[in-house]
Amino acid sequence: MPYELYYWDGIQGRGEFIRLALEEAGAKYIDKCRSSTGTQAMMEFLKGDHGHAQMPFAPPFLKDGELVISHVANILLYLGPKLGLVPEDEKSRLIANGLELTITDFVAEVHDTHHPISTSDYYEDQKTEAKARSTAFIKDRIPKFLGYFERMLSANPSTGSFSIGKDLTYVDLSLFQVMEGLHYAFPKAMKALVKDYPKLSALRQNVSKRPNIKAYLKSERRLPFSESGIFRHYPELDLNS
Amino acid sequence: MPYELYYWDGIQGRGEFIRLALEEAGAKYIDKCRSSTGTQAMMEFLKGDHGHAQMPFAPPFLKDGELVISHVANILLYLGPKLGLVPEDEKSRLIANGLELTITDFVAEVHDTHHPISTSDYYEDQKTEAKARSTAFIKDRIPKFLGYFERMLSANPSTGSFSIGKDLTYVDLSLFQVMEGLHYAFPKAMKALVKDYPKLSALRQNVSKRPNIKAYLKSERRLPFSESGIFRHYPELDLNS
Repeated sequence: MPYELYYWDGIQGRGEFIRLALEEAGAKYIDKCRSSTGTQAMMEFLKGDHGHAQMPFAPPFLKDGELVISHVANILLYLGPKLGLVPEDEKSRLIANGLELTITDFVAEVHDTHHPISTSDYYEDQKTEAKARSTAFIKDRIPKFLGYFERMLSANPSTGSFSIGKDLTYVDLSLFQVMEGLHYAFPKAMKALVKDYPKLSALRQNVSKRPNIKAYLKSERRLPFSESGIFRHYPELDLNS
Repeated sequence: MPYELYYWDGIQGRGEFIRLALEEAGAKYIDKCRSSTGTQAMMEFLKGDHGHAQMPFAPPFLKDGELVISHVANILLYLGPKLGLVPEDEKSRLIANGLELTITDFVAEVHDTHHPISTSDYYEDQKTEAKARSTAFIKDRIPKFLGYFERMLSANPSTGSFSIGKDLTYVDLSLFQVMEGLHYAFPKAMKALVKDYPKLSALRQNVSKRPNIKAYLKSERRLPFSESGIFRHYPELDLNS
């Protein structure tokens, strides 16, 4: 039975971290909300119509038979071994989950660059605060997070150029998406900063050339970045030129 | 060998979610940074002095022999089975991890009520924005998150009054801490809202009366809430009376 991915229709958002893992592995999955009845089906889970064990707080969530798994890091924790996207030993899996949770925190901060006051209000209603938060994000938070990921890539004792062990993991796919998103949202800032992150940049290139990812990125299944997602390009929030 | 918990000295912060699990289980652990050399030892891990496998992004992290595990949800995922604080079946563990990750997201939002613009700047430099964010947090976010946790408690088909299965889990201990923290930080708002969350309130009371937790809360090991932690009581951010 194919996996069923539930995520808001029309955006990459947090669902994209799951899509990349499924696509790299060539797994069979249904991106539920891209069908006409999918969003309605998703809302039934969120409302609790399917009971305690199938009542996630928010999308994305993955349905695999009777299991309903919510939160990106939890889904990848579950899928990683099944898709061959994490080493088998416990130590590596705990490191992978720790890294994915660091990515999770960073992605939440990316979201708040355009919504620092309220997720219920429009960006246009919090533009001044968004500029202040984005300025701090570019100055302090991008270097803190990317610096850490770069150090982890550098410190990996295995041959290869991945974050854990010698082979690609789901963490590397998520780091690819983070780098793609940052370049989309903050092109001027990234142009100025990217020289400090050669291993992350190489990883981004390497991932983009993997056959399954390359085919996915060209397909209609890969939605474009947009100003409805998490990584948004508002030129006024980017580094001042 | 006792577990070693590494977390910033002097505050409950995110370390408290780990302490509560260890204390409830009566596990042997060392709260490293409460000794004179602990913070120095912690910084060596963060700087990467101990290599790739022992290089967390941030505290809290837990050392168990050669394993170094970072992020609250990851630590609890690891400790839960060892401490008897999660059911044995995979489905329950995935639900527990999903709930803990929802708590993680909520706690990050609590932090941002007093630091909506920049974690590098003082609260006093972002008070206006903090008031706006706190207002939205009280109006929209507390009801959204607590409403979800209340629904999960209500929908649990097992007897008892816990969030998963029939026995206490680490998730329930984290929900206790969330309720304690919200009552500390936003007493007026919680006074107005708490009637909507009878099961969460009952859980809070039940957890506080458990022998090990009761003894812990009275001990010197339980640090007080303060305005250096995540849950901060700034009266001006609370509901206007």
